[in-house]
Amino acid sequence: MKSIREIVSKRPWLGWVIFFLTMVVVFLLGLLASSIIERRTEAIFAYNPQVQFESWEPRAEIWGRNFPREYDTWKQTADTSFQSKFNGNKPHDALADNPEMVVLWAGYAFSKDYYQPRGHFYAVTDVRNTLRTGAPVDGKESPQPNTCWTCKSPDVPRMMKEMGISNFYKGTWEKLGSEIVNSIGCADCHDAKTMNLAISRPALIEAFEHMGKDIKTATHQEMRSLVCAQCHVEYYFNKKNEEKVPYLTFPWHNGFSMENMEQYYDSVEHVDFVHALSKTPILKAQHPDYELYLTGIHSERGVSCADCHMPYISEGGVKFTSHQIVSPLKYPQLTCQVCHREETEQLIENVTERQEKVMESRKTLEKLLAKAHVEAKFAWDKGATDEEMKAILQLIRKAQWRWDFVAASHGGSFHAPLESSRILADGIYLAQEARLRINKLLAKKGITEEIPMPDISSKAKAQAYIGLDIPTLKAEKKVFIDKTIPEWLSKAKERESKYPVKTL
Amino acid sequence: MKSIREIVSKRPWLGWVIFFLTMVVVFLLGLLASSIIERRTEAIFAYNPQVQFESWEPRAEIWGRNFPREYDTWKQTADTSFQSKFNGNKPHDALADNPEMVVLWAGYAFSKDYYQPRGHFYAVTDVRNTLRTGAPVDGKESPQPNTCWTCKSPDVPRMMKEMGISNFYKGTWEKLGSEIVNSIGCADCHDAKTMNLAISRPALIEAFEHMGKDIKTATHQEMRSLVCAQCHVEYYFNKKNEEKVPYLTFPWHNGFSMENMEQYYDSVEHVDFVHALSKTPILKAQHPDYELYLTGIHSERGVSCADCHMPYISEGGVKFTSHQIVSPLKYPQLTCQVCHREETEQLIENVTERQEKVMESRKTLEKLLAKAHVEAKFAWDKGATDEEMKAILQLIRKAQWRWDFVAASHGGSFHAPLESSRILADGIYLAQEARLRINKLLAKKGITEEIPMPDISSKAKAQAYIGLDIPTLKAEKKVFIDKTIPEWLSKAKERESKYPVKTL
Repeated sequence: MKSIREIVSKRPWLGWVIFFLTMVVVFLLGLLASSIIERRTEAIFAYNPQVQFESWEPRAEIWGRNFPREYDTWKQTADTSFQSKFNGNKPHDALADNPEMVVLWAGYAFSKDYYQPRGHFYAVTDVRNTLRTGAPVDGKESPQPNTCWTCKSPDVPRMMKEMGISNFYKGTWEKLGSEIVNSIGCADCHDAKTMNLAISRPALIEAFEHMGKDIKTATHQEMRSLVCAQCHVEYYFNKKNEEKVPYLTFPWHNGFSMENMEQYYDSVEHVDFVHALSKTPILKAQHPDYELYLTGIHSERGVSCADCHMPYISEGGVKFTSHQIVSPLKYPQLTCQVCHREETEQLIENVTERQEKVMESRKTLEKLLAKAHVEAKFAWDKGATDEEMKAILQLIRKAQWRWDFVAASHGGSFHAPLESSRILADGIYLAQEARLRINKLLAKKGITEEIPMPDISSKAKAQAYIGLDIPTLKAEKKVFIDKTIPEWLSKAKERESKYPVKTL
Repeated sequence: MKSIREIVSKRPWLGWVIFFLTMVVVFLLGLLASSIIERRTEAIFAYNPQVQFESWEPRAEIWGRNFPREYDTWKQTADTSFQSKFNGNKPHDALADNPEMVVLWAGYAFSKDYYQPRGHFYAVTDVRNTLRTGAPVDGKESPQPNTCWTCKSPDVPRMMKEMGISNFYKGTWEKLGSEIVNSIGCADCHDAKTMNLAISRPALIEAFEHMGKDIKTATHQEMRSLVCAQCHVEYYFNKKNEEKVPYLTFPWHNGFSMENMEQYYDSVEHVDFVHALSKTPILKAQHPDYELYLTGIHSERGVSCADCHMPYISEGGVKFTSHQIVSPLKYPQLTCQVCHREETEQLIENVTERQEKVMESRKTLEKLLAKAHVEAKFAWDKGATDEEMKAILQLIRKAQWRWDFVAASHGGSFHAPLESSRILADGIYLAQEARLRINKLLAKKGITEEIPMPDISSKAKAQAYIGLDIPTLKAEKKVFIDKTIPEWLSKAKERESKYPVKTL
């Protein structure tokens, strides 16, 4: 075989061709190297602080100047198109979809108005606009306590620092209307100095103390769920203190299970409201999302809330956590498919199938509870005594707690489908047992007529049945929204303009 | 640096050392190569047939001469120590553990005797020994039809070939006592010529035909579940034919779900037995294992029965399928851990947790159904009419079908925990609804006294309550076991000694 030298010596022009080809290749290698260095540089300088601000700074847009990627994705929690997709492109009116819920909550503000929560972006807007907070105009008080703000805003830890925890919980909801204006954001979960995850709400810290634990020993992976568990939990307003301040408390003293919490509530004789029809001392479950998640397989396998709801994204050379907290089904390729090798459609089907099975039992229990309340009222109307009704009302209380535990939990039917189903099965048993006993009681009184069931086939009909005057409530609310909220906002703007923010 | 040649030239003995060391290494390499060749040889000659036999040969020990590994593991289905471990080292008496089941099956043979099935090895022994098949001595007939043998033995396809399918199903159980003697084995699932998986039972083939499908198009992986689905399914004895032969039929005409099958049974007005207390036209669920498995995640992910219940084992150079069909928890390292990376204890806990949650709802429904039957009897005793009871009995029928669907299914609470729980929740609703209506009916008749509940706290008490004379049944059975079975066995031995088996 001839050597290259021999071949070239016979064709001198070939030497030049090889020379120029080599130059082209070297030039392209240079371009590649430059691109690699650029991506690295981007990563190295990803954190390039623009401003310095106070540790209590509540405004996401200020933090966002130093963390533009996290801020951009956080802003996307304003986009509700994914949620609407499953709901015919309209906000999800839970009462319209399930009018029995109006009856289940008769005597409680949730019967007035209950939309499925939208993104974190809307937390403050929505709590202002709901009929539940009333229309506190011209010195009139809201029906809700100030405690109701606790989960809505990073202005809360700011005000708690200023006022003290107990003072914060004191008074009615409109008290801090002009202070609490920024929706759930950076300061709720982060330490401004280190950017570490941090617990900003005392209720969670105190709940750990009640269990003899120290939340400061939690691992980073545990914190990736615990920051969510500041709000996505079962809680109640404990008024058993000198000034009867509704002190936000998690009922975890005996443990996290549905039965553990019920046992605690029973032991402190807690009642959220007395039912307007049946006079049942009701336990209103708040969203026990974290507690139900703990009983599911994802939690058992060490998967945190953030793993699925805040997946990692790569932009340029930078890998960061998405702060668009939303259903993981919006982007299964970043969430489920990190572990599961199945196709997107298959995974979504697996989720909805679980949700539908749980929903079936939930709807059954919902209808039974509505009947139980109406039938209990019928018994009262026929002269039943407290003594006769006591055991029956306990059964309704237990059944409704089970229903609400599942119904109120965000994602519980996926996080822990079997536990949800188990709880509902027990609820169905108890609700039917209550109805059976009401019937026996009536029979003993010689009353055997069919108990008339009201027409509660729509939200409006159900609300009319329990005696709510929604048009008046809405008219009052409109005055509040048009008049009070602009006042609150202008006060807040004035105040916030003075917050110290130093450009670096 | 010095070359080896220089070093050795100064120390001639070193040359010999190197020479012998090299020889040792080469010798060891030779040993290794031989071992590798031997393992390969073992694999190549793994199938070394010793005998030739007829395609209908029912005796596992004959097949076992050609397939010693499969046969050895099959024989281990005689070992029930794993099952007993969870059960205090005694056979699992389902009626003793759940005396309500006696009441639920009043009027049906299962109320006499129901042990949790042992391994395949015992299928024939156990069906002979159970009180359910009675004591057909001296020309007396068994209360069970011959169809009851269908799932017990590879003698069944042999006899079906000889007698024809319909003729096989004809007559009472003792008819083929001396013919059906080999427990579930090789010929039930394998083609003797090709050793391919094969369907030996007509009911499954016919069920596919009813659904407009051809079972011959099933893939090998599907067959790894379908051979099990010859028996581990819901079925009934369809007597709607000219000679009223109890023809084994799977109710899959509308689909596999609990509701699909119920709909089919309702459409053909099928009743397994009329309940002795409540007069309910009961649907007795047989073990719908395959159908429930189809609704679970393992099936959805393409995992077959054999993948978990018959894992691969390596012996020497040979990889083969274990035929010790047993709970996969007996050897999680060969089953679960092929896919799941968790520790054994964790995996077992995950399984038992699911089972316990389903069991909780099952026990609730079991107790409610026992009450419903007793209360319905009370209503009959107080003069209720057919017309008044009709809707109530339909509710009990539906509730008991749901309970039995889950209770009768082997492993359903793990194969499909959420579907099991959903079904039980619906059953609880229906059982309670029945009780409520009985109560209303009684109230209308002016009867408001408490309905007395019998003491059914033990199997014996429950059996006494429904009027079973177990000592007599046991005494009769003993005569049958001591007298008839040895006759059957000696006839069978004589017959089998003439089967053609050719030593190769």
